[in-house]
Amino acid sequence: MARYSGGRRSVGAPPGTIEYSGEQRVDQIRIRFFDYDEERLEEKEVTSIEECFELRERESVSWINLDGLHDTETIQSIGNRFGLHPLLLEDVVHTTQRPKLEEYEDHMFLVLRMLRFDSERKVIHSEQLSLVLGPGFVISFQEIPGDVFEGVRARIRSGKGRIRKSGADYLTYALADAVVDSYFVLLERLGEEIEEIERELVEDADPAHLPRIHHLKRELILLRRSIWPLRELLSGLIRVENPLITDRTQLFLRDVYDHAVQVVDTVESFRDMASGLQDLFLSSVSNRMNEVMKVLTIIATIFVPLTFLAGIYGMNFEHMPETKWSWSYPVFWIVTLVAGASMLVAFRRKHWI
Amino acid sequence: MARYSGGRRSVGAPPGTIEYSGEQRVDQIRIRFFDYDEERLEEKEVTSIEECFELRERESVSWINLDGLHDTETIQSIGNRFGLHPLLLEDVVHTTQRPKLEEYEDHMFLVLRMLRFDSERKVIHSEQLSLVLGPGFVISFQEIPGDVFEGVRARIRSGKGRIRKSGADYLTYALADAVVDSYFVLLERLGEEIEEIERELVEDADPAHLPRIHHLKRELILLRRSIWPLRELLSGLIRVENPLITDRTQLFLRDVYDHAVQVVDTVESFRDMASGLQDLFLSSVSNRMNEVMKVLTIIATIFVPLTFLAGIYGMNFEHMPETKWSWSYPVFWIVTLVAGASMLVAFRRKHWI
Amino acid sequence: MARYSGGRRSVGAPPGTIEYSGEQRVDQIRIRFFDYDEERLEEKEVTSIEECFELRERESVSWINLDGLHDTETIQSIGNRFGLHPLLLEDVVHTTQRPKLEEYEDHMFLVLRMLRFDSERKVIHSEQLSLVLGPGFVISFQEIPGDVFEGVRARIRSGKGRIRKSGADYLTYALADAVVDSYFVLLERLGEEIEEIERELVEDADPAHLPRIHHLKRELILLRRSIWPLRELLSGLIRVENPLITDRTQLFLRDVYDHAVQVVDTVESFRDMASGLQDLFLSSVSNRMNEVMKVLTIIATIFVPLTFLAGIYGMNFEHMPETKWSWSYPVFWIVTLVAGASMLVAFRRKHWI
Amino acid sequence: MARYSGGRRSVGAPPGTIEYSGEQRVDQIRIRFFDYDEERLEEKEVTSIEECFELRERESVSWINLDGLHDTETIQSIGNRFGLHPLLLEDVVHTTQRPKLEEYEDHMFLVLRMLRFDSERKVIHSEQLSLVLGPGFVISFQEIPGDVFEGVRARIRSGKGRIRKSGADYLTYALADAVVDSYFVLLERLGEEIEEIERELVEDADPAHLPRIHHLKRELILLRRSIWPLRELLSGLIRVENPLITDRTQLFLRDVYDHAVQVVDTVESFRDMASGLQDLFLSSVSNRMNEVMKVLTIIATIFVPLTFLAGIYGMNFEHMPETKWSWSYPVFWIVTLVAGASMLVAFRRKHWI
Amino acid sequence: MARYSGGRRSVGAPPGTIEYSGEQRVDQIRIRFFDYDEERLEEKEVTSIEECFELRERESVSWINLDGLHDTETIQSIGNRFGLHPLLLEDVVHTTQRPKLEEYEDHMFLVLRMLRFDSERKVIHSEQLSLVLGPGFVISFQEIPGDVFEGVRARIRSGKGRIRKSGADYLTYALADAVVDSYFVLLERLGEEIEEIERELVEDADPAHLPRIHHLKRELILLRRSIWPLRELLSGLIRVENPLITDRTQLFLRDVYDHAVQVVDTVESFRDMASGLQDLFLSSVSNRMNEVMKVLTIIATIFVPLTFLAGIYGMNFEHMPETKWSWSYPVFWIVTLVAGASMLVAFRRKHWI
Repeated sequence: MARYSGGRRSVGAPPGTIEYSGEQRVDQIRIRFFDYDEERLEEKEVTSIEECFELRERESVSWINLDGLHDTETIQSIGNRFGLHPLLLEDVVHTTQRPKLEEYEDHMFLVLRMLRFDSERKVIHSEQLSLVLGPGFVISFQEIPGDVFEGVRARIRSGKGRIRKSGADYLTYALADAVVDSYFVLLERLGEEIEEIERELVEDADPAHLPRIHHLKRELILLRRSIWPLRELLSGLIRVENPLITDRTQLFLRDVYDHAVQVVDTVESFRDMASGLQDLFLSSVSNRMNEVMKVLTIIATIFVPLTFLAGIYGMNFEHMPETKWSWSYPVFWIVTLVAGASMLVAFRRKHWI
Repeated sequence: MARYSGGRRSVGAPPGTIEYSGEQRVDQIRIRFFDYDEERLEEKEVTSIEECFELRERESVSWINLDGLHDTETIQSIGNRFGLHPLLLEDVVHTTQRPKLEEYEDHMFLVLRMLRFDSERKVIHSEQLSLVLGPGFVISFQEIPGDVFEGVRARIRSGKGRIRKSGADYLTYALADAVVDSYFVLLERLGEEIEEIERELVEDADPAHLPRIHHLKRELILLRRSIWPLRELLSGLIRVENPLITDRTQLFLRDVYDHAVQVVDTVESFRDMASGLQDLFLSSVSNRMNEVMKVLTIIATIFVPLTFLAGIYGMNFEHMPETKWSWSYPVFWIVTLVAGASMLVAFRRKHWI
Repeated sequence: MARYSGGRRSVGAPPGTIEYSGEQRVDQIRIRFFDYDEERLEEKEVTSIEECFELRERESVSWINLDGLHDTETIQSIGNRFGLHPLLLEDVVHTTQRPKLEEYEDHMFLVLRMLRFDSERKVIHSEQLSLVLGPGFVISFQEIPGDVFEGVRARIRSGKGRIRKSGADYLTYALADAVVDSYFVLLERLGEEIEEIERELVEDADPAHLPRIHHLKRELILLRRSIWPLRELLSGLIRVENPLITDRTQLFLRDVYDHAVQVVDTVESFRDMASGLQDLFLSSVSNRMNEVMKVLTIIATIFVPLTFLAGIYGMNFEHMPETKWSWSYPVFWIVTLVAGASMLVAFRRKHWI
Repeated sequence: MARYSGGRRSVGAPPGTIEYSGEQRVDQIRIRFFDYDEERLEEKEVTSIEECFELRERESVSWINLDGLHDTETIQSIGNRFGLHPLLLEDVVHTTQRPKLEEYEDHMFLVLRMLRFDSERKVIHSEQLSLVLGPGFVISFQEIPGDVFEGVRARIRSGKGRIRKSGADYLTYALADAVVDSYFVLLERLGEEIEEIERELVEDADPAHLPRIHHLKRELILLRRSIWPLRELLSGLIRVENPLITDRTQLFLRDVYDHAVQVVDTVESFRDMASGLQDLFLSSVSNRMNEVMKVLTIIATIFVPLTFLAGIYGMNFEHMPETKWSWSYPVFWIVTLVAGASMLVAFRRKHWI
Repeated sequence: MARYSGGRRSVGAPPGTIEYSGEQRVDQIRIRFFDYDEERLEEKEVTSIEECFELRERESVSWINLDGLHDTETIQSIGNRFGLHPLLLEDVVHTTQRPKLEEYEDHMFLVLRMLRFDSERKVIHSEQLSLVLGPGFVISFQEIPGDVFEGVRARIRSGKGRIRKSGADYLTYALADAVVDSYFVLLERLGEEIEEIERELVEDADPAHLPRIHHLKRELILLRRSIWPLRELLSGLIRVENPLITDRTQLFLRDVYDHAVQVVDTVESFRDMASGLQDLFLSSVSNRMNEVMKVLTIIATIFVPLTFLAGIYGMNFEHMPETKWSWSYPVFWIVTLVAGASMLVAFRRKHWI
């Protein structure tokens, strides 16, 4: 049901109703809290969201990372604490949003999609990542624990690079960048799948390739729907004039934007290639059919007339002079062989064999 | 006739002629009247439109909901009472408009389409919903009684949420939101239909799938025509600078806009998928034909030459030495079986069996 | 020749050469003259254009309607009288223009196309309608007498509606509106043709459908070329800032524009549907071929091996022990029937029958 | 080589190198010189370009027309005399440019393509026409002598129309107009070719149609590439604000622009139609195959079982009671004829015959 | 892996990490250094980048050309010396960027792709070229030594043309121009490949053409992805307002832009043509199948009924009067020949032979 439901609340519920639309995929909500500036780093895994609020008192960057969205109370209390708009909270829990960027009075809201390729079932899994960027804090909401942010966390911990010296906007950039980077892994996998099918098709087309190509095309349609709005989102983020985003970070955002454009380009190329595979498949099938038909026709053209000839001399007319002649039988064989051989020559001339 | 007639008056009639273009689908026009502010709610079902005018004297939000459009007198008297432009009234009764937004001097006019999926006949029913938003009032015109507004009515009655505290613009938003939300239900149904066809096609393509796919594609063409302009409409509504729409409501409208974009995206994806189904069907048919042809060719290639051989020894030549030899018959059988078996081996090598 | 010639004068003729490019389709040029204001109406059919000029002296709206374009002298004298640009007159007589809007210093020039569906030959006839809107006058040029303006004339005569109270711009609107309205009739016809072909195709595809579909697609290509620029034209007319067009009329033009957009939308949908019909046709043909091949294969698979068996026992070897056994013949029949029956079972299992 | 080389100088040559990229198609460069104003006309065919410079001293319009581009010295000396940019001269001699408009400080540069349809080989020949418009002069460069300007020359000589009363900008217009007008002739020819193929296809598809359709599509691809940029060029020319182009000429340019748009539209329609022809061809082939297969299947279905029956009674079993009965043979014939007839009835019911 | 990886750093590495993403394709980094003004030229091949810095002290144009990107230290030290942004350096070493233009505070960054056609394997090789344009210097980074700049170097050495009199912006133009020019060579090769396939297909379609066409389409998809952004890049370069680029150079950039547009146009045409080839191939295959089927059907239609007839007179019924008649056998032959001949006539009438 959820696949096309577009983050919609139950029919009749007022807007701003916070009600998780996905399946409850985690047992226990999990909150990880980072608070850092250039000198200091505090990392904590808390059980109740209130603990974060206590911690969050200094002039530093706080990153609250929530895994699991079924606990609407926690989400509501975060909303109250940070003054988030009810529609924003509704979008967080309705996890089939398309990527989008929304500016509110004193915070920004980003919806991204984390994509993962299940190599076994050749299916793309899509998970919603909601990011809230406010003055000095970033809140990220995920549906299930696993994510692509281990690199970011490592950089925060190690204190290498720009991240500890920069603000919440840079952290947002780093998270978006990690998401976009992970798309390239996905594209590699898909590219390999395309090349594999292609290689097999050139060798020998098989009915089993058909559902594989169809499945690939379908996944690309869904992938495109997830990725296309991303370009728009990031281009909006570059052009936005908002004190939350510093000029220095803009430069980095331009870089993610470039990557996103490249991802979109690649998906488009993949779609073209998948269409090419379909054409290749159909042409292969036609070719094969042609080959089959040639075999049939060659056999028929050689043997049907000869069978007719044999049939004639199998007739029981009393007055058939040839049947009495002693050299009839060898002549029959000679005629047969000459006819067959000249047929073969004719077929070769027509390039049928 | 009405399917493509685009809300056109009878040829020769002057513009602004109010003449219902649909079939008269209700026996009796039905008027429901809501008048509310934060404290007070009045709900009435009236028989004559004048009753509403009497009621409508306070500083509150009035919602007049008309079911049935054949009674042109009532519609004309509403038009007179609220100062609606004749072209607006004409659009109300010509029920094949595309969604559009029009600004008049002191009111706005929205045409939306309510869509309903008839699961049995797999047909999308489309009904025109006309909304007039003026200062302190909303008038909604429907062709037949059933609608998607029960949730909105419930929220007005219960007084929960924002609706009782907000103005007529918020009510308009709520109605538009209910319409767009109902599209997701439709999309779910269509998505299920696509997946069902797909599943069946992968298993076994059947000529009966062809009209189903064609029908699906056709409904998607019509659906797209209904939904595509909606995006434009809502994007216009967001950008409009009109005192009728408050800033607070703009934020909510942005949300409906997002949903509409998602609906449009999904319809596009569905169209791609339906094309994919068509390709899958055609490829399946080709595959099957190939299989059929292989069977035929195998049979012919094995038995036609052997039949010829049998035909030879059925000839009545008097001088056929082989017929006299006592081991001819068993040799014939051996030759036959060896030839047949080696053919089978050859076919297996060619991956035909 | 004229079909694609784009309103071009003879090669080498200077621009502004007035030379009718169509066939002379009327014997006698026909001029109808309306002159009206709110109180007064004068309607005349004149034989020479000069009569109109005499009449045209008051503060009223004049509508000169010309049928037949071969009489270049008359057209030239109109041009001189109203100060029309030579290129405008050239466009009037070259009757394969695409719809366009041109602003001259003190008049506007519109080219529209009147389309008519010849139900018998299923062909769309296209006629050029040129409109000149100047202060207090409208001149309309048609190739042949019949038109879609009877409704407008009736409204002028009856004095009902706005038309007698409004200026020349409203008359222009009324004429454009009548033209666009007539497209809906055309679309109805085409829609019915599409539905008829579809219904027949689903029942039973026939080679005769092929040229019908092809013809339909071709007419849609030509129709689209006539209608597509109309949208642009009308959108230009809405945005134009010209004292010739009053604000009040703008509102009405917006209405025609909406209709034109709907026409364009519908033509696009029809094109999609016609492509769908082509696909449906091709798939049906493939399906049928499949069916035919199955019949052939079933027949061959059952009888070819059995014929071979019969052939064996028709051989004239002297030493064939089976031929002497008295139960050989009934056994042969039993084997034959069992083999045939099991084949049929196998085919049913494969869903071939 | 030159077909796709895009007006490129030899690799390594500096930009502005003047080196003719086409084949030397004329033996001798040919220079025609016109110098006129309202009163006076001087027409000359000169052998050296210096003669033109001498003549060019008055307040009049000069038109220098060069046929043949291999004489780089002459071109260089023109460039020096009129102060043309080296890149401009490079573009003149590299004759595979796409149509474009370039503004230089005191002159404008237009590249157009003259197209000619070789009716015999059904090939479109394309020749580059470079126009330089400066104050009081127009220089036109052609590759080979024949052109479409005889009408313009005749109008200059006769002094009829506007041309002698207008400036160099009007002459430029007249030349561009002549080029665009010549496209309509080309389109007529292509339209006839399309209609001819179509008519033949509807009657009877033939493998020989395939390369014809393919060739047509290919020429349309190339044609489109030549014509598409023209629209942009002319739209640029209309919007340009340059003292070289007077307001009065703008009006005429708008007219050529309209024609160019019509040409582009028609080429697009032709592409759609050519695709339609391809579809029609493929469908016809499928239809024919279907017919062929039906014949085969009907023959096989009727005769294969009967042959089997005949085969049975040709067997040499000693104990076949039927062979002794005196009415066996007529019964066999009756069975045969009844079976065959009922088969034919069944086929007719299936609409196979 | 690298094919679709889009210049991405290792997962988890901070942005600005300089880590070469390609294979290490050169053993030794190679640095060529040009420093010139109108009078003076210094050309050097240095082993360490520091040597360049020493040289670079005058008011002249310096061109540092690096072949090989695996030596990150050298690249880092260039970055430090010229104040290049870390993200820029990251882009230099991640060699699967799409063409792009980036403005930094005091330098500009261009990514171009050098394409080379491997005629043997019919594969397009793509190499990233990164250009940094700063005040008085150009730095170019290549992956492997061979390039398309020999012409530029020759012009610098010879001192002919504009190059020695112009600044670093003109050098940048010259390099970009050389790259775009080299694309035309590539397009020639592809054009020849297309024409060759086409010529062969028209003569005789072969299954071996299928992978060739598919391969061609695939290369065109990839080529398009490399070339499409180039247009945007150059159009950006023309519009950029940056003191680094003088007005005089803008004129030249406009010229490269024109060429780039032509390249893009040609690639699009090639894509259309490649689709045409696919259609041609499929239609040829269908045609051939049709031909094969006709042969089969003709043979079967003639001989199957006759064989049945022969079978009848091979039956062993005792009471078959015809077998006793003396003229039966010649009559059988006459019937056979007449039937066969009339079949052939019928087939010729149906244009089957």
